[in-house]
Amino acid sequence: MRVLAILNSRSGGPEVLEAGEVDDPVPGSAEVLIDVAAAGMNHADLSQRAGGYPPPPGAPAWLGMEVSGTIAHVGVDVVGWSVGDEVCALLPGGGYAERVAVHASLVLPRPEGVSLVDAAALPEAAATVWSNVFMLGELAADETLLVHGGTSGIGSMAIQVARALGADVITTVGSAAKVSFVESLGARGLNYHEADFVEEVKAATDGHGADVILDLVGGDYLPRNVSALAVGGRVMVIANQSGEPSTFALGSLMMKRGRIHGTTIRPRPLAEKAAIIAGVRENVWPLIEGGAVRPVVDHVLPLAEAAEAHRQLEAGGHIGKFLLRVR
Amino acid sequence: MRVLAILNSRSGGPEVLEAGEVDDPVPGSAEVLIDVAAAGMNHADLSQRAGGYPPPPGAPAWLGMEVSGTIAHVGVDVVGWSVGDEVCALLPGGGYAERVAVHASLVLPRPEGVSLVDAAALPEAAATVWSNVFMLGELAADETLLVHGGTSGIGSMAIQVARALGADVITTVGSAAKVSFVESLGARGLNYHEADFVEEVKAATDGHGADVILDLVGGDYLPRNVSALAVGGRVMVIANQSGEPSTFALGSLMMKRGRIHGTTIRPRPLAEKAAIIAGVRENVWPLIEGGAVRPVVDHVLPLAEAAEAHRQLEAGGHIGKFLLRVR
Repeated sequence: MRVLAILNSRSGGPEVLEAGEVDDPVPGSAEVLIDVAAAGMNHADLSQRAGGYPPPPGAPAWLGMEVSGTIAHVGVDVVGWSVGDEVCALLPGGGYAERVAVHASLVLPRPEGVSLVDAAALPEAAATVWSNVFMLGELAADETLLVHGGTSGIGSMAIQVARALGADVITTVGSAAKVSFVESLGARGLNYHEADFVEEVKAATDGHGADVILDLVGGDYLPRNVSALAVGGRVMVIANQSGEPSTFALGSLMMKRGRIHGTTIRPRPLAEKAAIIAGVRENVWPLIEGGAVRPVVDHVLPLAEAAEAHRQLEAGGHIGKFLLRVR
Repeated sequence: MRVLAILNSRSGGPEVLEAGEVDDPVPGSAEVLIDVAAAGMNHADLSQRAGGYPPPPGAPAWLGMEVSGTIAHVGVDVVGWSVGDEVCALLPGGGYAERVAVHASLVLPRPEGVSLVDAAALPEAAATVWSNVFMLGELAADETLLVHGGTSGIGSMAIQVARALGADVITTVGSAAKVSFVESLGARGLNYHEADFVEEVKAATDGHGADVILDLVGGDYLPRNVSALAVGGRVMVIANQSGEPSTFALGSLMMKRGRIHGTTIRPRPLAEKAAIIAGVRENVWPLIEGGAVRPVVDHVLPLAEAAEAHRQLEAGGHIGKFLLRVR
């Protein structure tokens, strides 16, 4: 049997994304097969489509790092999942398709109160925020988190989880409308066209600075992040969208006893990803089911319109995630 | 009563160091008074003398971050130390003097097998190595440590402790004689005038890279350190002797899931320093007393020749620590 997928047989702009058919995935003994309801889109998809950020060895060549859907088959070694379970999952690739096979340890139940389609907005954002802000960044309840890009899927998740766990959040965004939105999530919003975030963070924290900074910009944000950092602070760089090299003064990082982490989730060994997903299920899922955290979805397009969705994601201006509806 | 100290009433070259008298320190109830046998010299002393790296509030204005000596008085709240104990101690400043007062939690016993004078070479190097390479850097027994400047007091301590705890060590040094010396400590030595450490580290580790890098150079070493880093690796920057800004690609740090720590010990709160000293006493002191780790002392000059000692330390070429003998 063959199933529908969005393929990119060559690298390039959104136009390289074309509907095609791939072999129905054959799940391994520790994997489940998911009939996909929706695929979440990520900025990393844009990089992969353009020829950067290749999928790890063994992953499907086509795009898609997260899906929601219904379990259609469970491998013989899988415990805890059954055919018919509504789930979402973190993938090494291949989510822009009708069906995916994924290791059972990367699967999460659809949270109560979240639609099956919207659940596709959760795995990557929740895993990124939990692993970076909390597992590695060790944000504590009485600390301040600075998030660059608070209206992105990751940004809106970071704000909500940090607020729910008792931290203060300051976030940079690009318009007055986005300031209003992030303030509705409980963050202090700064329009980066109007305010110097280094000064604003210092003023908002009585000179203390940000204890953890979650940065998707990279490049010349690094020296400013170090300036905005509190003593003992942690800068978590999870994307380098600017692509520029970073220049900063190590002496200032030393005097603050600060640290800079660079991380990505996708290339990590399965065991590390499984530990992150277990942490998400234990710590973030109850916040979603309790209503303190919700997926923020800008809009949903049919899978066949993946190229148009890429154009819109690249154009910016959205608030929250783009999803591709499969069925 | 007044006691002898080496004062720098103004900033500048070694010539600003002059013998003078200061008030006999009055120990607080949690402090001990030490009759100094020897003061250890550190590169940070050169910075402080020149006008950078000011002492933290409350510390003596004159130089000296470590001493050895004999306890002359114990405060009423001090437990575990007695008059006459031979000790060494980490200081916020003021070690270039006949007498110092120091919080009891920063004092260590003179290790068996080490002379009282040589014990002055231990506190700063052991605390720096233990806190950076092990507490923050989390070097494990099967990992590789890269140390820049393996013949410095800190470098020679790092090599010995890491080897004693089962790690491999690669170190950069500036001459063939220094290569021989670090190899006698169990490290692989690279002459940075002849070898590209990035290539050499990769070759020596079958492409794996260094798990922890201890760097006292800073500046343009940072991008090369990131290149030499293993996946999951940690760069510990404890000095920025070059003074240059650092430029590097965040994307490469992200793909390695690496981190860069900048740290210094002196400005930390007392409780953090006390925890480091407790870790040194528990983990490093037994290695010294068992003979696996020894203080490396280049030479000892009288306290009155501090200016000359600074000239020699600035000139480089030494192996190990400079000490100033007080009595």
